[in-house]
Amino acid sequence: MQYTRKGILFIISGPSGVGKGTIKKAVLPGVGALLESISATTRQPRGHEVNGREYFFLTPGEFSNWIQQDKFIEWANVYSNMYGTPREFVLKNLEQGHDVLLEIDIQGALQVKATMPEGVFIFIAPPSIEDLVDRLCNRDQDSPESIAARLAASEEEMTFMPQYDYVVVNDNLEDAVDRTRAIIMAERCKISNMKMGG
Amino acid sequence: MQYTRKGILFIISGPSGVGKGTIKKAVLPGVGALLESISATTRQPRGHEVNGREYFFLTPGEFSNWIQQDKFIEWANVYSNMYGTPREFVLKNLEQGHDVLLEIDIQGALQVKATMPEGVFIFIAPPSIEDLVDRLCNRDQDSPESIAARLAASEEEMTFMPQYDYVVVNDNLEDAVDRTRAIIMAERCKISNMKMGG
Repeated sequence: MQYTRKGILFIISGPSGVGKGTIKKAVLPGVGALLESISATTRQPRGHEVNGREYFFLTPGEFSNWIQQDKFIEWANVYSNMYGTPREFVLKNLEQGHDVLLEIDIQGALQVKATMPEGVFIFIAPPSIEDLVDRLCNRDQDSPESIAARLAASEEEMTFMPQYDYVVVNDNLEDAVDRTRAIIMAERCKISNMKMGG
Repeated sequence: MQYTRKGILFIISGPSGVGKGTIKKAVLPGVGALLESISATTRQPRGHEVNGREYFFLTPGEFSNWIQQDKFIEWANVYSNMYGTPREFVLKNLEQGHDVLLEIDIQGALQVKATMPEGVFIFIAPPSIEDLVDRLCNRDQDSPESIAARLAASEEEMTFMPQYDYVVVNDNLEDAVDRTRAIIMAERCKISNMKMGG
């Protein structure tokens, strides 16, 4: 009698400003081995960012070669910069039985779902649209026009929630982190994720 | 935008001696509203047991009437006493959006699954058969013959694990309780358990 598991792909996603990055950072320490995927981008490195640590920094030409070679499980053009999730890192680790975490926007999550529907899709939702306005306004990094545009996008994005497996309402950071961690722990106990051994 | 849920039926089950009762008792305080179903039995009340609190105490005649009236979601004859889970309490609470917990043996869980496959079936498993022998021997409540019989039954019962949704290996009580609680929390975040509201 042995209990071994397949690697599980977890996707933490949700509308802009909902707090998914904060939840991800808080969840990681308490949840055992969970490898975070490193994105590729064409934007310039900022501050202390190191190639291969925060991002893989690619030229626009390299990025478009990677697209043509189907090296991304999802990619998008965000405010004139390209972002993508390299396929090899994700697949290699899942095959070796390691769990992998992606934190991506909703468009990216839907792209991943198209090719990897067996992933565990977690939607981080605001308690209300009013709350989302507050969060976007309090980030102090967006202009009023940008906030209005993000909010309109977010409201539309909420309609994709039924395509996810789980919803975690970010009403309170501590509770939202507990629930996200619970989802990860529970998925690791799923019989359908086990490999039954002798 | 509202997040309301259907009531979820959780079934904690596993072989005799695996520690499912201990896990259930430890899980209940930290997991929010979760109603424990009260079984009916034909055995005599012991000590301070009160009718309608620990059990519904029925005469054999009453019990067999309940069976004929389909008032049980599962029932069994265990060492010449009848035990059963009254259907009305479970259904009424689920309809009202309350979560219900059953802690039952494997035969009972399989009966429940036949009529309520939407339940969340959690298999509490021993880390090894050797461990199960130790537990049965250390309970000091069974004769060697009874232990041998229970162990043979338990080994056979392990083969039903693939019919469950989750497995929690009881290698360490604290970890097993954490994982069981995580499963309950995670199921409450499942999109498929949500009722989407305007």
